[in-house]
Amino acid sequence: MSTSTQIQLIARPVGWPTLDNFRTTTVELPDLAPNQVRVANEFLSVDPYMRGRMNDVKSYVPPFALNETMTGGAVGRIVESTSPSHPVGAVVVHDLGWRDVAQGDASGFRVVEEIPGVPVSAYLGILGLTGLTAYVGLMHIAHLKPGESVFISGAAGAVGTAAGQIARLEGAARIIGSAGSAEKVELLTERYGYSVAFDYKREPVRKQLREIAGDGIDVYFDNVGGDHLEAALDVMRDGGRAALCGAIADYNATERTPSPDNMANIITRGLTLQGFTLGNYTHFFPEFAAKMGPWLASGDVVFDETIVDGIDNAVDAFLQLMRGGNIGKMLVRI
Amino acid sequence: MSTSTQIQLIARPVGWPTLDNFRTTTVELPDLAPNQVRVANEFLSVDPYMRGRMNDVKSYVPPFALNETMTGGAVGRIVESTSPSHPVGAVVVHDLGWRDVAQGDASGFRVVEEIPGVPVSAYLGILGLTGLTAYVGLMHIAHLKPGESVFISGAAGAVGTAAGQIARLEGAARIIGSAGSAEKVELLTERYGYSVAFDYKREPVRKQLREIAGDGIDVYFDNVGGDHLEAALDVMRDGGRAALCGAIADYNATERTPSPDNMANIITRGLTLQGFTLGNYTHFFPEFAAKMGPWLASGDVVFDETIVDGIDNAVDAFLQLMRGGNIGKMLVRI
Repeated sequence: MSTSTQIQLIARPVGWPTLDNFRTTTVELPDLAPNQVRVANEFLSVDPYMRGRMNDVKSYVPPFALNETMTGGAVGRIVESTSPSHPVGAVVVHDLGWRDVAQGDASGFRVVEEIPGVPVSAYLGILGLTGLTAYVGLMHIAHLKPGESVFISGAAGAVGTAAGQIARLEGAARIIGSAGSAEKVELLTERYGYSVAFDYKREPVRKQLREIAGDGIDVYFDNVGGDHLEAALDVMRDGGRAALCGAIADYNATERTPSPDNMANIITRGLTLQGFTLGNYTHFFPEFAAKMGPWLASGDVVFDETIVDGIDNAVDAFLQLMRGGNIGKMLVRI
Repeated sequence: MSTSTQIQLIARPVGWPTLDNFRTTTVELPDLAPNQVRVANEFLSVDPYMRGRMNDVKSYVPPFALNETMTGGAVGRIVESTSPSHPVGAVVVHDLGWRDVAQGDASGFRVVEEIPGVPVSAYLGILGLTGLTAYVGLMHIAHLKPGESVFISGAAGAVGTAAGQIARLEGAARIIGSAGSAEKVELLTERYGYSVAFDYKREPVRKQLREIAGDGIDVYFDNVGGDHLEAALDVMRDGGRAALCGAIADYNATERTPSPDNMANIITRGLTLQGFTLGNYTHFFPEFAAKMGPWLASGDVVFDETIVDGIDNAVDAFLQLMRGGNIGKMLVRI
């Protein structure tokens, strides 16, 4: 295990990324310096935010450099170590994804416990930034209170499936979800704690949400933007709060995407829209982990993964994610 | 003074209101019942929010009824009274505007002090809901902190001229304003505490604000919506807050108005957009009045009024307001 197969970005996508934008390369790994580790990655995370990093624009995370290996969440097992705190065999979570073997200073690798019955991949999802994103958005951005009605868009994604269950456990009275297929819609109500769900590809979101929302919603957790945000603004009740977490509808758009035509509702209904990225909220991790651990152990929270095998299929996995081809967390298994 | 000349809405405007949408009528007033007052109005308030009430749609205030006299802020003097708490000669603030003589239960009329050197019309503006709107938006919605940069759109209006001065007195480091003429722009910096201002009719707002905003803005006080909100989202700094108070750009639009194409900034920069209408924030009135009284007395806050004379010109005054023909508070003097 002295070589590493890695995925590099070689051209910035315009609109939808294609296989041509990437290349696979194999590099020789140098010997470990002191306090370093070599890690055999077991799972790589592919996430919507990575699309933004493929553009050469300033954002909350810097763009991927061209002709260099991309980075991203990963979990693996230490196979070689010069660090006393990081023994061989330990499971680590780190940011050197998009490669089968990772190597670097031990400080960049967080050693985690293996929990019986829970795959280590959970640290890339429900027990990691995905679960924390859902928790922070609902509880610390939208300030969900027991008895309220919630709408979550992109509900069958990794964040959405976590958010529905967290909302239920935190006392939401009614939880509405949107997803992109009849199969996903069924999973939302059967498995993920949603009260009711609809297929946003079937009819305009605006029309469907109006019919379903009854007296309106107090909290909106937005993973989609565009038509979903517009539909939510239609049905939000006075004093409603929206946590804006993602806008996957816009990520590959090359033209101006339509924005809500009902922004005036923000004024007349006294609404609050607050965007967030997790970087500013990681201090909530202990609070989150103290709740999510027991929820997972008791089976109150379940999670799914869509797994693609092999480093050579990592780009495919990412493209599949961008097109909504996943249920729950999208992962590459090495 | 036993008759009252009153303005009624007789047709709901589509787009810009016209004189044809209104009529003037004179009614005989009945004798006073117990605990009532008759008031000779001295000033009537015309306000942008009234345009919304001319439409037959649910909003935070109910629509004006057709063929009935409209209502709105007014200040006048009691000429006849059957209420011990409301003596003849007292100045009262009330909601029975759009008429020269008002009459009703004393409980609907608030007796106010006459402050030497301050015209009673101030109770319809800087000392009333106008000043409170500016104060609440800056301090309790956008949570302005000393040293921050602020952008205020529609800055030469009644709320905007108050907001610029309040922002300065509350410690803002830099205050940017937009207005619709070179004359207004000059007033903003010469008289109303703005650091810098621009004419939004001269070039696209987006371009001008980008050039002027330097390191960006922390707080945006929005009276306009549309292109102004879009421009503000371009230059807002991480963690910025926008208080959405008005969207006069949209009020007379018959087609979908363009919405911001940069809503994604809300997420990536962790912005908060919060709309408000004053009804939910009147409990801040004592806090506001305790500051504004001394500011007015010391001359730290100045205000202007654009006055149109005569009840017969009230509709004209309203139309002039909608087209930006006022500096400071727009009033009808009886």
